[in-house]
Order: sequence, then C-alpha cells, then structure tokens
Amino acid sequence: MRIGIADTMFARADMGGLAIKTMKKEIARKGYNVKIERYTVPGIKDLPVACLKLFREKKCDLVVALGFVGGAAIDETCAHEASLSLINVEILEGKHILKVFVHTSEAENDAQLAKILKDRVEKHAINALDLGFRPESLIKRAGTAQRQGSENESTLKI
Amino acid sequence: MRIGIADTMFARADMGGLAIKTMKKEIARKGYNVKIERYTVPGIKDLPVACLKLFREKKCDLVVALGFVGGAAIDETCAHEASLSLINVEILEGKHILKVFVHTSEAENDAQLAKILKDRVEKHAINALDLGFRPESLIKRAGTAQRQGSENESTLKI
Amino acid sequence: MRIGIADTMFARADMGGLAIKTMKKEIARKGYNVKIERYTVPGIKDLPVACLKLFREKKCDLVVALGFVGGAAIDETCAHEASLSLINVEILEGKHILKVFVHTSEAENDAQLAKILKDRVEKHAINALDLGFRPESLIKRAGTAQRQGSENESTLKI
Amino acid sequence: MRIGIADTMFARADMGGLAIKTMKKEIARKGYNVKIERYTVPGIKDLPVACLKLFREKKCDLVVALGFVGGAAIDETCAHEASLSLINVEILEGKHILKVFVHTSEAENDAQLAKILKDRVEKHAINALDLGFRPESLIKRAGTAQRQGSENESTLKI
Amino acid sequence: MRIGIADTMFARADMGGLAIKTMKKEIARKGYNVKIERYTVPGIKDLPVACLKLFREKKCDLVVALGFVGGAAIDETCAHEASLSLINVEILEGKHILKVFVHTSEAENDAQLAKILKDRVEKHAINALDLGFRPESLIKRAGTAQRQGSENESTLKI
Repeated sequence: MRIGIADTMFARADMGGLAIKTMKKEIARKGYNVKIERYTVPGIKDLPVACLKLFREKKCDLVVALGFVGGAAIDETCAHEASLSLINVEILEGKHILKVFVHTSEAENDAQLAKILKDRVEKHAINALDLGFRPESLIKRAGTAQRQGSENESTLKI
Repeated sequence: MRIGIADTMFARADMGGLAIKTMKKEIARKGYNVKIERYTVPGIKDLPVACLKLFREKKCDLVVALGFVGGAAIDETCAHEASLSLINVEILEGKHILKVFVHTSEAENDAQLAKILKDRVEKHAINALDLGFRPESLIKRAGTAQRQGSENESTLKI
Repeated sequence: MRIGIADTMFARADMGGLAIKTMKKEIARKGYNVKIERYTVPGIKDLPVACLKLFREKKCDLVVALGFVGGAAIDETCAHEASLSLINVEILEGKHILKVFVHTSEAENDAQLAKILKDRVEKHAINALDLGFRPESLIKRAGTAQRQGSENESTLKI
Repeated sequence: MRIGIADTMFARADMGGLAIKTMKKEIARKGYNVKIERYTVPGIKDLPVACLKLFREKKCDLVVALGFVGGAAIDETCAHEASLSLINVEILEGKHILKVFVHTSEAENDAQLAKILKDRVEKHAINALDLGFRPESLIKRAGTAQRQGSENESTLKI
Repeated sequence: MRIGIADTMFARADMGGLAIKTMKKEIARKGYNVKIERYTVPGIKDLPVACLKLFREKKCDLVVALGFVGGAAIDETCAHEASLSLINVEILEGKHILKVFVHTSEAENDAQLAKILKDRVEKHAINALDLGFRPESLIKRAGTAQRQGSENESTLKI
C-alpha cells in the first residue's frame, strides 16, 4: 500500500513530519507493508491538486492532507475552498483523503493550538492506516463520538 | 436490491446500527429482498467517497448517508461541504443518497437531540425502502409537509 | 415534448399537482403535444438526482423542480445546496430545469406564503411551456422585470 | 466570430438589447465580422445552461451573460450560484463568458442603478469584442484599475 | 518549462508585470529554461478559464493567477468564486495554479496595500519556480509558517 502525505509551508508546525513519524511507529508495530510519499505545497488551497498528483503520479492508495488555517476570516474561506476541493478529488479518484485541518480559531493560545494539532495529526495518522488495513475496526467504533484534537465526546442514549 | 449504509465514528450515537435495525424490521414485514452493506468512516466529510465506494465497489442501488454535526460553526461548514458533495455523488452515479444529518444546534439538550436523531434515522430508513420499492407511494404524499426528526407540519391552503 | 415535474413530500402544499394542473390547462388551450412525468422525493436536496433521472430514464426535454424551503437557517443552506446542484444537472444534461423554490422567510404568515407559492408555481409552469414551445416570446419580454410570486416590478429608464 | 448574448426577463432593463446595440456600433466602427445570437431566460440561475446552449447549439465563440440581482438576501445567493455555475460552463467549454451582473444593493436609487447598469453593460460589451479580436489590448491595460459601472480607480504605486 | 501568468485589468497594480520581472531575475540567476506566456482578462472571475487556456492552448506546465480583490462584500464573493474555480481547473488539468490574491480589506491604506501586494507577488513568483524546478526545497520548508505579503509567522512547539 502507498500512502501520500500532503502538507504545507504555511503551517506553523511540521504536520507532515509528525504524521509520517506516527505512521512509521504503527507500521512497524503492526507489520504493515507501506510506502509513504510526501508532497509539500505553499498553502492549503494547493493541497487538492497535490493529492491528485499523489494518487496519479505516485500511485498512492490513500492520502492524508494536512492543513493549517490562519486566524483571519479569509483563512476560513480558504479552508472551506480547500475542503470542498479535497472531497472533489476523492470523488474523482474514488479514494480516501483524510482531511486533517487545524484552525487557529480553535485555541486560545499557542500551547493549546499545538496540543490540538498534535493530537489531531497523530489520531488521523492512525485512522488512515485503520481505513487502509482494518476498515472493519471503524464499523466497531461507529457512533462512539470519536474526536481528533480533543478527548472523545459522550454518546447519546437512544 | 442492495442498500448501502454509510456512517461515522464521529457520531454520538450508532446511527448506522439504528438505520439497519429499522430497515430489517420493515424488510421482513414487507417481504423485500435486500442486501445491506455498511461502511463506516471517521467523519461527515468522509461520507461522499464512502457512498461512491458503496455504489461502485459494493454495487449498491441506493445509499443512506448518516451524519452527526457538532455544535461549532466549523461543524456546520463541514456539513455543508459534505452535503454538497453527497449530491455530487448522486449526480455522478445517477442514484439516490438519502442524506440524514442531525445537527447539535437543533436541540437544547442531549435528550432532545437523541429523540430527533432517532425519529429522523428511523423515518429516513423507511423512506429509503419506499424510494426503492414503492416510489409511487411518495407521489401520494407529495406536498404533505412530511418531517423527519419531528411531527409533520401543517399544510397550506392554496 | 416530455416535461418532468420533480417535487417533495416536505413541501407544505402540493406544488407538483398545481404545476401539472396549470400546465394541462395551457397545453389544452394552445394545443401542445406534451407528456408529463412526475417524480416525488423526500426533500429539496433529493431534487437534483430526481431531475437527472427524469432526463435520463424518462427522456424529459425539460424539468420543473419544485422546492419548499423551511424557516430555519439550515433550510436556507439546503436550498442553496439544492439550487447549485440543480444548475449542475442542467449543465451536465444541457437542458433547462426551472427552479421553483418558495422560502418560508418570504412571507409573514401562512396565507401570504400560500399566495406567493400559488403565483410562483403557476407562472413558472407557463414559463416552462413558453421556454419549450415559444422561446422567442421570452426575448420579447427581456428586461421587463417579470416576477413570479408577486406583481412584476417597475423597469428602469436607461 | 459568433457572440452569444444571454439575458433575463427578470432584469429591470433591457440589458441584452443594450449590449447588442453597443456591440453593433463597435463592430461597424472596427469592421469586425460578427454574428450575434440572443437567448433570454426567466432569471439569473437559468443563465448557465443558456450559455452552454449558445456555445453548443449556436456555435458561439464567446458569450456575454447579463444578470440583474434583486435587493433581497436570497437574490444575492442566487447571483452567487449563477456566477459559480457560469464559471463552470466556461471551464467545461474552454471559452469566455463575460459575467455582467448588476446588483440592486449597489445603488441608493433607481436613477443611480440605471446609470451603473448602462455603464457596466456598455463597457463589458466592448470588453467582449476586445477579448475576441484584440486580446493584446487587455495586456496593455493590465493592472490599470479598470472598472465597469463607475469611473476607473486609482492605481497603487509599487 | 512553460509558465503562464494570468492577470486582470481590474487590479490596481501591474501584478502580472511584477511577477514576470521577478521570475526573469530568478530564471537568469538559476539558469532555468523557462518560457513565460501572459494572458490578461477583465476581472478575477475571468481567471479560471484564462488559466485553462494557458494550459491547453499555450501548453503551460504551471500557472500563476494574480487577482486583486476590491473592498466591497461582493468583491469577496467574487474572490471566493474565482478561487474555488481555479482549484477546479487545477484538478481538471492535474497541474498547479499558484493563486495570488490581494484583498483590499487586508490593508488600512494604499501604501500598506501596495507593500503587501509587492511582497506576495514576488514571493509567489519564486514559489512557482521552486515548485516547478526544486519541489524538494518545499518539503524542507514544510511547517515553517511561510507567509507571502508579510513576514513569516512563528512556529509552534509540538
């Protein structure tokens, strides 16, 4: 299996590097056979075509797209455009892109933002491997209020 | 007929499980011949490609996409992106996806949210079967202010 | 000519029935040769794929899509998603869909809402026939501030 | 060269007629060889498929799409949907659509609105011909703060 | 390598000219073999099809799209539409478009706006060459909070 990592120079932390480090540990632990391809672009709106290239030119089976969203209104608009377009690439290719975006507006300070970023990237790096190698493990966790970036939420009693 | 169920680990209740349970009861009652395929993904924005895979890889004839929307502004944006993209998949495949989204903002507390979720999932599970097996029954209910998640509304006198 | 009518169970009035009744009267009056196909779906976001099916499976030449928009913010978002996607279907098929949406927010009470709905549906039912049979009649009315749902507006002096 | 003019019955002035009149004068003055095709639709959201038909059925090389936007919030949403979809048609066909929209919200009264409309339509009618016959003349005016609907703006000193 | 430059007559500064000047200096310094093609259009919403034409008709390998966004709400909507559509062109062609937009709302006066514009255009002109000739240099700067239009931001400690 080939997994693509698309990230940006804009991000305030090495999200791609952290995703790769987390994956490599899990790959070794589980004995998976994975080749990782990395592609770095200037900003979040460059991620969709980067993912497309990872699918087409590097033959990736799934991609993790890592984006950092600035604190201004225009940054949120960019994130929305990137997000919609990443889903368009998924539909075009029929393959998953895990969309890992961290928004500056989620945190009150840099320390909290770093913590959210670390938790979200690490959990989604594992989710990507689970989606690729053990999709049935996701069905088992369906509806369990899984969160990336914070603790899981409580479940509803239905 | 093959019906796909796409749901998420993010959801605060087992929406996919509830949809399947409701459908199985109705399938038995009506004597339909249906095979159900389930696909669970991390979050709402992963649903569009999951539905595409249910159509293409599992040969589903229609899909029910179940999403739970968190209470933050960014969650509503995610729901909008997922929603638009689910319609894109419908157009691409020429097949229906029943889009069953429950928004945290719809309820004042967890009990009310659970109630909305249960009613909406159950009614749309039946709608999916009606759309597949008895489309003429929908024409009969055209313009009757059907609601999922609450009681039906009143009709207008025209 | 085949004309499709796509409407919803969600609507608080039988918009599809009213469109068909209005068209049949005009068809008889003008001596047109038209076959009408009707397709009812749960809600507004199910209309795009319904229209696609009317074009592809029922060989319609044009479609009237009738949607009723609830009063909550999420309903307006749904209308926006449906609207964009209906235009996408028009572009994909190269054929017109008359998009007849009535928004709860347009009226102060049910009586006014019913009046808007009736006027808009009836006028657009005629517009659909004009677009199909007498497109030159629309050029003659270009820039004349035609409104559906209310009286026409005044024109500007240029 | 074939140029398409797409306009609406909704508009409060004959934007299509004005565009054609302006073009004909310029065509005569410059000695261009142009055939003009006109297509009128009910409203702004019908323009994208009208443009597509002008390209495909009338073999137009470029199209001018003229839309008038009402004063309500829903009108602005319609304009956004139409605008996005017009660009989609441009991308699909690989040809230019000059998008000439006049928004009621731009003016304080009808006289001002009429003036904006007239200036914008006339200037973009000429822009369409320049884009078709003398594209190099646009490069010469790059970054010169050209405006349609008002006087040009000042340029920045960089 | 062929690089396209798409810019507008609407912009309040010669963004295309500045991008070309910056690139030529870098091209000479690094000894790259590049042919530059320029295409100027009226406004920001004309950029997507201009980029498509640069890819298809001028055989460009990557494009820099330069847009200037006015200060009104409608200008921000136009920028959003253009931005989404530029990404669509990237996905359609499988090639990068560096999207260099300057928003009037970013600055408090013309001098500051000019400074932002100059910095952003110059840095993205270099980014375009790096992306084309030395993509590995972007991986080295991944997560380093690179900004165009201002100084880089600080990085987070994770």
